[in-house]
Amino acid sequence: MVENKEIIMQELQEVVGSKYVRCDETEISIYTRTMGRLEDLGLRIRGMPVTAKADFVIYPENAKQVSEILKIANKHKIPVVPYGGGSAVFTGSVVPVYGGIVLETKRMDKVKYIDEDSLVVTAEAGIELFKLEEELNKRGFTHGHFGGGFYCTTLGGGIATNGAGRLSPKYGKIGDAVVGLEVVLPNGEIIRTLHVPHHSTGPELSRLFIGSEGILGVITEATIKIYPLPEERLFMSFLFPSVRNAFRAARMIIKQGLKPSLLRVHDENGWAFAPEFRYMRKELSLPEEKGSIMLLMFEGPSEIVKASERVTSAICKREEGKDLGGEPAKFWLDHAWWYFYPRRGPRPFWYGVVETATLFRNHEKLYFALKETLQSKYKDMIIMCDSTHHWHTGASLYFRMLLEKAPGNKSPIEVAEDIEDTAFRLFFKYGGTVSHHHNVGVRFAKYLPEQYGPAYQLLVALKKTLDPNNIMNPGKLVVI
Amino acid sequence: MVENKEIIMQELQEVVGSKYVRCDETEISIYTRTMGRLEDLGLRIRGMPVTAKADFVIYPENAKQVSEILKIANKHKIPVVPYGGGSAVFTGSVVPVYGGIVLETKRMDKVKYIDEDSLVVTAEAGIELFKLEEELNKRGFTHGHFGGGFYCTTLGGGIATNGAGRLSPKYGKIGDAVVGLEVVLPNGEIIRTLHVPHHSTGPELSRLFIGSEGILGVITEATIKIYPLPEERLFMSFLFPSVRNAFRAARMIIKQGLKPSLLRVHDENGWAFAPEFRYMRKELSLPEEKGSIMLLMFEGPSEIVKASERVTSAICKREEGKDLGGEPAKFWLDHAWWYFYPRRGPRPFWYGVVETATLFRNHEKLYFALKETLQSKYKDMIIMCDSTHHWHTGASLYFRMLLEKAPGNKSPIEVAEDIEDTAFRLFFKYGGTVSHHHNVGVRFAKYLPEQYGPAYQLLVALKKTLDPNNIMNPGKLVVI
Repeated sequence: MVENKEIIMQELQEVVGSKYVRCDETEISIYTRTMGRLEDLGLRIRGMPVTAKADFVIYPENAKQVSEILKIANKHKIPVVPYGGGSAVFTGSVVPVYGGIVLETKRMDKVKYIDEDSLVVTAEAGIELFKLEEELNKRGFTHGHFGGGFYCTTLGGGIATNGAGRLSPKYGKIGDAVVGLEVVLPNGEIIRTLHVPHHSTGPELSRLFIGSEGILGVITEATIKIYPLPEERLFMSFLFPSVRNAFRAARMIIKQGLKPSLLRVHDENGWAFAPEFRYMRKELSLPEEKGSIMLLMFEGPSEIVKASERVTSAICKREEGKDLGGEPAKFWLDHAWWYFYPRRGPRPFWYGVVETATLFRNHEKLYFALKETLQSKYKDMIIMCDSTHHWHTGASLYFRMLLEKAPGNKSPIEVAEDIEDTAFRLFFKYGGTVSHHHNVGVRFAKYLPEQYGPAYQLLVALKKTLDPNNIMNPGKLVVI
Repeated sequence: MVENKEIIMQELQEVVGSKYVRCDETEISIYTRTMGRLEDLGLRIRGMPVTAKADFVIYPENAKQVSEILKIANKHKIPVVPYGGGSAVFTGSVVPVYGGIVLETKRMDKVKYIDEDSLVVTAEAGIELFKLEEELNKRGFTHGHFGGGFYCTTLGGGIATNGAGRLSPKYGKIGDAVVGLEVVLPNGEIIRTLHVPHHSTGPELSRLFIGSEGILGVITEATIKIYPLPEERLFMSFLFPSVRNAFRAARMIIKQGLKPSLLRVHDENGWAFAPEFRYMRKELSLPEEKGSIMLLMFEGPSEIVKASERVTSAICKREEGKDLGGEPAKFWLDHAWWYFYPRRGPRPFWYGVVETATLFRNHEKLYFALKETLQSKYKDMIIMCDSTHHWHTGASLYFRMLLEKAPGNKSPIEVAEDIEDTAFRLFFKYGGTVSHHHNVGVRFAKYLPEQYGPAYQLLVALKKTLDPNNIMNPGKLVVI
């Protein structure tokens, strides 16, 4: 509980009007948790108080108001947690672990300018990605960022956590799409980065805020790349005898310079056990054949798409991929959010996820090392792995792990702690990161000094310089 | 002249050995100028002493030595100018305007690791881009960065100035290719950024140093993307009735998602008067026809290249482009460095360049605004413009200006000052940057506060935090 609550309340009300500052129990409860099922667990693992509560929820409508709010927070030295969609399910990155102000950004939701020549859209940071997409679709464009949280993730939240959508090979991460940002710095100063990509006029300041998880300021507006809706979409699906073949084919697709919009590999367990593939096989009457599945999509001018199909097909066949046609990939994309709601089947004893990004030289090694290490520790665990975001130099690995029954007398928290720690040890050994697209938050912050080594001091210096009172989302990412 | 020169000399010699610290007149003279013909002019315009001289030239061979040198510089509070190829011809970005130490990086020139799976190369920062390319070619790869300074630019220098090569549409700027950096911070701390692209594990620290012009530290090693040498290269050339048609065709090529490796537009004056095109027309016996020329190249799997050719051809023909075949584009690329040496013809009264990057919505407007404004001021000036780097959202504009005779009684310096100032006023009006790929240096630093607005304070804060004694390349980019 902050001191001087009444005084602060009054000051905040003067900025946004009394209607837009809330401290009633209902509102506070809502903003004390994100939608993460795993979040309480994460907080308990980190020894953070699970009873953490915001003191205020505030709804500013523009950067000027955000600026005033941050000045008030500095004066009273109370935390400010910028809140987007609350869809960072694993990391608790918007949980107000030290109370203070939850700064809800969703009133800042206007599309300011769709620029069909420059292929950019400028919008306020609180707009949800699906709403922005709807506005763009009306004009024949797309932003291309269809992540798990598509229906709740905000533009600013996506950028602050550097999230990734299903079509990342073409559209990049949302951070890659940023052309320019408006940011309110912790001291209340409103800045605009240069809104021109690829210049040679100083370091690209936007990049400081991409993936910064709200610890360096509040993103209030973003200008990101858009793309014309494609002339043609072509789907392909291949079932490989093993994940090794699928990984090799994926690397060759990248190496040949092909530009798929979708390129996912799911290993044998993923194809066999993941609920979305059980559902797909049933709906499409696919045979119960073992293997590792690759789903692809190409978009663009018809001729390029067809040429890409021929080259890709040859690559996949050289790796003994069985052509399942376009339907599985299309079905998967059409049901990309089916997975999330409602829950399918009974709750297991434990379910968890770890995910990382690494260079291709370590990608396959890390896959086998982690799978074998965990499987030998937990014989009954089902370990499924997806390699779902392919870049020029490497890819993500996303492990879903399921224990139907308790292993010995371990509690779910003990299992989670053990598995996470085992995973991160191997991630670091094989040059992987704490996260490819889930972010760090409160849950994984303790791993950051090891991840960064001496460079961690640079992160700390940035944080201290920009936010000397440590008001911005304290306890997340960089803990000072 | 620094104080305690003898003492500093001795300390530096202890770090690198006496052979590798020089303060003889010859060496000092060499490192007091880059190869820029326009540099003295630039310094005079900025009122900087043209007689500025380094006190020491030092040749470290590794990051550890660089670290020790920076510690010595901090102790004595003397400037350190990291020196790459010295090929930033216009901006004086490595001129030691306040004396001190020129830190020559070219002994750090080893290729450490070519990773054919991850498609990256790790090399020390002092290696020249052409040498790195030779090493990669032996293994069937290319880095793809063929800028004007290809034969002298170093890897670290290219990254520190965020330079661009002729094949930027495919390979990006060299800054875009960075996967990870080793940097010695001004305080001597050696850090490595995360060597994984597209992660969600904090802001991408590499980006702080890309385009930082040596004011935030010394890049000592870089890991950048590489590409297999292409299966096929296909050239195309079109002559458009006007630059408007050529600009429109270029925008459509981008909008359709085509991926040329080379995409250049030269306006009517460029095609008519630029020495490289006079030479080309003569050598290829091309007709003396007026128009705006577009040069293209596609690389990759044969099928994709051929499909790209068909789509591009249709776009260019819709804009009344006359197909000149592949030969002009191939000739141009084969002679890409012909332009630089030796000088062709007599020295004019004045020759100058300004260049910028802007979004497509302003690109054509800025082109005409600047051309008309300058032409009305200087009737006899030949103004040639190239739009040579095309990105998803915008492109560069590169103006070459030539006055054979003095305009009235103005001196070359007065002409340069007037033209630069006129150009920058219009750049800012149309959302352009101080530079697309030449960088800022000492010459254009005075425009940065206006360019950045309130965000300039963030640049200043970064500089002051990382380099409290202001030893790193003072007087460049951000002047504190």
